[in-house]
Amino acid sequence: MITPISVKKLVDLAFQEDLLFGDPSSEGSIPLSTWGTAIIRAKSDLVLSGQEAAQEVFSRFDDITDIKWFKIDGDTCSKGEHVVQLSGLLRDLLMAERTALNFLMRLSGIATHAKAVMDCIRTYPNMRITDTRKTMPGWRYLEKKAVRDGGAFNHRFNLSDGIMLKENHIMAAGGIAKAVERVRAHTHHLQKIEVETTNLDEVSQALEAKADVIMLDNMSNQMTSEAITLIRGHSHGPHVTIEASGNMTLARLPEVAALGVDVVSMGALTHSSIAADLSMRVTAVGDQIFSQPKV
Amino acid sequence: MITPISVKKLVDLAFQEDLLFGDPSSEGSIPLSTWGTAIIRAKSDLVLSGQEAAQEVFSRFDDITDIKWFKIDGDTCSKGEHVVQLSGLLRDLLMAERTALNFLMRLSGIATHAKAVMDCIRTYPNMRITDTRKTMPGWRYLEKKAVRDGGAFNHRFNLSDGIMLKENHIMAAGGIAKAVERVRAHTHHLQKIEVETTNLDEVSQALEAKADVIMLDNMSNQMTSEAITLIRGHSHGPHVTIEASGNMTLARLPEVAALGVDVVSMGALTHSSIAADLSMRVTAVGDQIFSQPKV
Amino acid sequence: MITPISVKKLVDLAFQEDLLFGDPSSEGSIPLSTWGTAIIRAKSDLVLSGQEAAQEVFSRFDDITDIKWFKIDGDTCSKGEHVVQLSGLLRDLLMAERTALNFLMRLSGIATHAKAVMDCIRTYPNMRITDTRKTMPGWRYLEKKAVRDGGAFNHRFNLSDGIMLKENHIMAAGGIAKAVERVRAHTHHLQKIEVETTNLDEVSQALEAKADVIMLDNMSNQMTSEAITLIRGHSHGPHVTIEASGNMTLARLPEVAALGVDVVSMGALTHSSIAADLSMRVTAVGDQIFSQPKV
Amino acid sequence: MITPISVKKLVDLAFQEDLLFGDPSSEGSIPLSTWGTAIIRAKSDLVLSGQEAAQEVFSRFDDITDIKWFKIDGDTCSKGEHVVQLSGLLRDLLMAERTALNFLMRLSGIATHAKAVMDCIRTYPNMRITDTRKTMPGWRYLEKKAVRDGGAFNHRFNLSDGIMLKENHIMAAGGIAKAVERVRAHTHHLQKIEVETTNLDEVSQALEAKADVIMLDNMSNQMTSEAITLIRGHSHGPHVTIEASGNMTLARLPEVAALGVDVVSMGALTHSSIAADLSMRVTAVGDQIFSQPKV
Amino acid sequence: MITPISVKKLVDLAFQEDLLFGDPSSEGSIPLSTWGTAIIRAKSDLVLSGQEAAQEVFSRFDDITDIKWFKIDGDTCSKGEHVVQLSGLLRDLLMAERTALNFLMRLSGIATHAKAVMDCIRTYPNMRITDTRKTMPGWRYLEKKAVRDGGAFNHRFNLSDGIMLKENHIMAAGGIAKAVERVRAHTHHLQKIEVETTNLDEVSQALEAKADVIMLDNMSNQMTSEAITLIRGHSHGPHVTIEASGNMTLARLPEVAALGVDVVSMGALTHSSIAADLSMRVTAVGDQIFSQPKV
Amino acid sequence: MITPISVKKLVDLAFQEDLLFGDPSSEGSIPLSTWGTAIIRAKSDLVLSGQEAAQEVFSRFDDITDIKWFKIDGDTCSKGEHVVQLSGLLRDLLMAERTALNFLMRLSGIATHAKAVMDCIRTYPNMRITDTRKTMPGWRYLEKKAVRDGGAFNHRFNLSDGIMLKENHIMAAGGIAKAVERVRAHTHHLQKIEVETTNLDEVSQALEAKADVIMLDNMSNQMTSEAITLIRGHSHGPHVTIEASGNMTLARLPEVAALGVDVVSMGALTHSSIAADLSMRVTAVGDQIFSQPKV
Repeated sequence: MITPISVKKLVDLAFQEDLLFGDPSSEGSIPLSTWGTAIIRAKSDLVLSGQEAAQEVFSRFDDITDIKWFKIDGDTCSKGEHVVQLSGLLRDLLMAERTALNFLMRLSGIATHAKAVMDCIRTYPNMRITDTRKTMPGWRYLEKKAVRDGGAFNHRFNLSDGIMLKENHIMAAGGIAKAVERVRAHTHHLQKIEVETTNLDEVSQALEAKADVIMLDNMSNQMTSEAITLIRGHSHGPHVTIEASGNMTLARLPEVAALGVDVVSMGALTHSSIAADLSMRVTAVGDQIFSQPKV
Repeated sequence: MITPISVKKLVDLAFQEDLLFGDPSSEGSIPLSTWGTAIIRAKSDLVLSGQEAAQEVFSRFDDITDIKWFKIDGDTCSKGEHVVQLSGLLRDLLMAERTALNFLMRLSGIATHAKAVMDCIRTYPNMRITDTRKTMPGWRYLEKKAVRDGGAFNHRFNLSDGIMLKENHIMAAGGIAKAVERVRAHTHHLQKIEVETTNLDEVSQALEAKADVIMLDNMSNQMTSEAITLIRGHSHGPHVTIEASGNMTLARLPEVAALGVDVVSMGALTHSSIAADLSMRVTAVGDQIFSQPKV
Repeated sequence: MITPISVKKLVDLAFQEDLLFGDPSSEGSIPLSTWGTAIIRAKSDLVLSGQEAAQEVFSRFDDITDIKWFKIDGDTCSKGEHVVQLSGLLRDLLMAERTALNFLMRLSGIATHAKAVMDCIRTYPNMRITDTRKTMPGWRYLEKKAVRDGGAFNHRFNLSDGIMLKENHIMAAGGIAKAVERVRAHTHHLQKIEVETTNLDEVSQALEAKADVIMLDNMSNQMTSEAITLIRGHSHGPHVTIEASGNMTLARLPEVAALGVDVVSMGALTHSSIAADLSMRVTAVGDQIFSQPKV
Repeated sequence: MITPISVKKLVDLAFQEDLLFGDPSSEGSIPLSTWGTAIIRAKSDLVLSGQEAAQEVFSRFDDITDIKWFKIDGDTCSKGEHVVQLSGLLRDLLMAERTALNFLMRLSGIATHAKAVMDCIRTYPNMRITDTRKTMPGWRYLEKKAVRDGGAFNHRFNLSDGIMLKENHIMAAGGIAKAVERVRAHTHHLQKIEVETTNLDEVSQALEAKADVIMLDNMSNQMTSEAITLIRGHSHGPHVTIEASGNMTLARLPEVAALGVDVVSMGALTHSSIAADLSMRVTAVGDQIFSQPKV
Repeated sequence: MITPISVKKLVDLAFQEDLLFGDPSSEGSIPLSTWGTAIIRAKSDLVLSGQEAAQEVFSRFDDITDIKWFKIDGDTCSKGEHVVQLSGLLRDLLMAERTALNFLMRLSGIATHAKAVMDCIRTYPNMRITDTRKTMPGWRYLEKKAVRDGGAFNHRFNLSDGIMLKENHIMAAGGIAKAVERVRAHTHHLQKIEVETTNLDEVSQALEAKADVIMLDNMSNQMTSEAITLIRGHSHGPHVTIEASGNMTLARLPEVAALGVDVVSMGALTHSSIAADLSMRVTAVGDQIFSQPKV
Repeated sequence: MITPISVKKLVDLAFQEDLLFGDPSSEGSIPLSTWGTAIIRAKSDLVLSGQEAAQEVFSRFDDITDIKWFKIDGDTCSKGEHVVQLSGLLRDLLMAERTALNFLMRLSGIATHAKAVMDCIRTYPNMRITDTRKTMPGWRYLEKKAVRDGGAFNHRFNLSDGIMLKENHIMAAGGIAKAVERVRAHTHHLQKIEVETTNLDEVSQALEAKADVIMLDNMSNQMTSEAITLIRGHSHGPHVTIEASGNMTLARLPEVAALGVDVVSMGALTHSSIAADLSMRVTAVGDQIFSQPKV
């Protein structure tokens, strides 16, 4: 696959911050030609994500390195299972260990989190739980993919691949009807328009404006239920996707699903995930014969 | 202050991923010349961090923007307190809102976490709690600073500003004595050498090798205590910094401090912090008169 | 406004290729402190575009430069009208002249082209003419904006802000129904799905699959008309946007509009526009007093 | 060959703008392991250019891709002829299709244009037609090469590889003699000096100043003829290259050649070329067996 | 002036390598708001060069910094003379001190060296001494300018702004005549062609081929003299620039000048210059009142 | 080995400055398919350094190039000895020749210089001679490695991997004791603290403050000797590294070593080294058969 440029740049940044002047601990203690084999494995149950970034890290190794993946993104790994095996110059392996693990731990943490929230609503297969744009600057692509690897869904990728009209846009445009009309005239014809609402009156206005998606922002279950009834009873209603957001807990997710919401968006999926636990262990060390001097 | 290049590059990446084709929601609904004032404030109690990155984000605005900070990095903010006020083109404010908040939320989350762990050991002012190199690739500088903003301490910044000899180095070099000797001959004279140990025998070897720092890795309180006794009773002992790592919980931190450990390093400080809650609200919108056409 | 990073990078590339070793013609003949005023003006009737890129070019000048725009993007300029006036170090003006003009000439050429095609269908205000992804690598943002500046419309910005299922996707997925179903399950809920069709049978399948947009690819007016009848008579039909593409000439555009097509996409808007003619003339040259040595 | 860094950067920009969040149309509908073969071919008669950029695009594919070129830059391709065949992961081929074609279409368009103008003066083998610096920012290297691929010639590459003294330089220096003298003292000894003239008096001054190249700017055929007589009759004349520029049409080119002009420079060669037509078609799709999990 | 992108990139690299994690010595000991004034001055007699790079370094400071230059590039500075004064945040000054000095010391070293070699041939005002392409990778622009600042001259800037045919080109082309003919047909009409020769026979061939510049490579004074006689006696001779290179010492330069050589090129000008001595001293330290919190 | 990103960026800069528009001398005279073999060899006795940078240069060649190193960094090369042999497209070899040599010549020059100073103190194996931060901006990693390749030692790599308190820090903090105390509380526990002293009183204060390293700045041999006596007689003395700096000549080095100094730091090691002499010679040229068109 074609590795996204943003991933290459993040790996460049990572190597610059960690390896700017090499690794004197390894250079001082390990001969250049020492060969090693290492295995990265799960130290807790997890859903794997981050393979593309880790592979980009490994691509910077000496060409003679051999890389064997046992799992791919989206696979469930039980504690102790092997994820990938690397054979190459021992120094290379140790210099890249932390960077590769830092990618895998954060991204697998998100994927594992995503799986946990989807597991809550297993009995409501028609509801999606999505991420938001609350991702780490520089990591948008990787974190959005981790969410999918865990079985949850994405919301829009960035400001230009979906229209979201919030309070400020609506105020500046002079109301929901005006805002939707103006933006529809401006934006391209493959983009849906979502309107954020906080009460039933705004929901009605969004319906009249033929919004494609209506977001129910921070509403109680009671108001959410009334909003859904209002939407589904309207002539435009069947074409509307209903999204709920705000104050979502694992406990509340099935309740909201039962009300008939189509999509719940949760910033915590990315901004408050706990790292998954993975580590690298060197399993063999030996001497490598070089037929000619190596750099 | 001179903003680190890595922060500039991260802001570039962030704008590229979020703003690649602008913000059609705002461009479609808000006139170019509409002026706005917005305030970012804390939505939970937190320790602020990320001001430098946010300021770099704001530096990309139109020059006429006015920025007023009410807090600086390291300040405690109570829920509801104002952090910074921005006055400028409303479109600029909305286009940068998410990126600025994504920096502030993650970094203040780390600073708040750091303060929490330091609060656990308030009565042991001689023990440091430090981060590790388990930081998000690309974010090392910012996350290390967030740890300091929260009152905790840094471990080494990267592979070249401190020597850490682990099992693999020791094996490859043929023992602790050999590894320390070789590395000391190789590395520069302002670097301290830390040796990772897992049992008392290794602690003894590290003492004999005159390691500057001895890490007690994943030891029980009992073994930690014996190691400390061993070290402090040795002639080189007074010059040794004792670091403990592994299985640290908030509850265990004061116990370890009581044993006489100098430093505890915790990867979770950075890899498993929860985002602090901050949001931006537009407080005023109006028209701005331009004396000549604006780009 | 926040200048997109891609525009900054393009200006960097432009300066590197043109100014790598400065401008010896100017450095050799013009004293460093010579002051100049220059005006860029239209040499043919045109619609202006490229102001943002030109402004980024000018932002690299010495700070003392004064820049006054008489027109903004989207304005019509008659032959001879002034676009922007620059006062600063004469060397600066001459070093940046070509780069600024190269941006303005190409982008205004596209905007002028876009206006010309929209003028063809003035009497059909409900039909859009859009660009495609056939833009110059590196120039996607700027060329898409130029199309809007000329009054035409954008198609999707890139591969991830709109779904377009072509022959190859359909074949690989095993038919239109399968392809739409799979992609709908995969992609986010703000994205519309477009299906490319080449005959009425495929149009029917796309209707059954509830495609949001149906593209009639390279169809005759006759077949286009039949496809529209088929679509508008179907229960899902009112929700479909109908796009036509292929073999579009200025003469044919009103015919297609009369048939009831919603959108016509034309690659030529960007890949085969002729540069608009603009030039820069120095209108005053004089000496500038510096109170202290200048770099 | 060593691919210029500017080409690598342009490909980076192109992938960032088109592939920032991958290709959900392909990812949703085509299995990761599906193999494909595709052929890029000419859809109109053209002169090929852009192979180096296309090859750089293909170099980002998975290593297993097989690339076979049937034509090289400068080759004439008749409508329907195959240019290059690609075998690899179908997703890779589809993700890169548009970027590769966008390079080939623009650059082959320029090469085809260059061939057309050279064909006009086939019977005057001693006259060169050259491009100018009116190239797309970021594309200077590629467009200059396309001009050569089409059989036409380059003018100077940038501001530092040839001296060109225009009206402003001459005014600032106090006349042609002064300007040439100063610049000759300043610049390196492998650079020729060209002087732009608009009347016979300036031509005389340029001759006296021993300019290496004299440009006759926007002169009529009559004045061009007189200028040539003046130059060739002067003692320095035999060492002067005579360049004409301005208002050149295909019809006028042979007239100017007949007058004895050495070089005609035409901005339109690059700024107003029409894209050549090329397209990619997938010719085979199948499953590829992987012995181990692939990223 | 427009700072070249390559200089900006070099400053970025410099700050990354020196300031990746800030300056803990200053951050630990100096309060953020401490104000300072510092002066950079010459510690040996020198010719100044590097102002543009130093200014780019200073441009990264906090905006409140005040910068006053007492000298400009090309000025002679006696030991002890002040070059530039900086007033700003003391931390900023100390963080940038080394980087600014490293630029100024190397570049002023080259300029001082250049002046020394030109002083050797003061009585031969018609001979130029030039640099070569033996410059530090990344520093070509800056080192070429330093040579000019010292009063010496540049040879070609890079591979594309001057043709130089060496032994390998000549062999591959099948002789000097063939090589010159082919290259003249290939390259643009503002480029001169230089031929490297090692004996009188090759000089004759170069003359016949009408080379613009003939390089006498590693010839004795005797052979140099014969070559000059041969060239000047040939009908094409008056149009030839004669360059000598190889084994040039300060003592030999006037001898070669006396023979009538036009240009001597010396790699040592850039690859073996000794750094000029400059240092920065803080002259005042005080507290700065900030009306609001500073980043 | 993992090539540092800074080296890749420097090679990018080098190719951009030298090869921006290719190599018309070679392109004009040498057919694309001409094959060549070339050897880089020492033209003076030297210690090799720069292999990593040269290898990065060669990595940009066409894949078919064959590279064979006869020496590695740190090896001594006598005049005439072969360093590396390259077989590939002749144009590739000639285009990269100068860039590769520019790296090898400067870095081998530093390594050779480093060996010379270490040879001066062969009989004092306990004294180190180190570099400083006076390296060429952008070249810190490479120059520091060259110093080690020559057998000398490194001082700190940058501002954040070692604490150095100079006059300004001490003044701002209010004395040596205060400065050391504050910095020790601020910085991480693997960093040593060095204090710069200029007289015996300051040495005493540094001792009391328990500085890890005491620098004797610009002291005479007499004062150096007294300072050493003072330090070694103090209870903290045995733990102190004593560094001397300033006015070091080859003649003085053994004197200082005899006094018992541990470390001498010399800026001249990097800022005033003379380039080592290496050159490339093409040893074979021939035609290469390509089974299909090549880019």
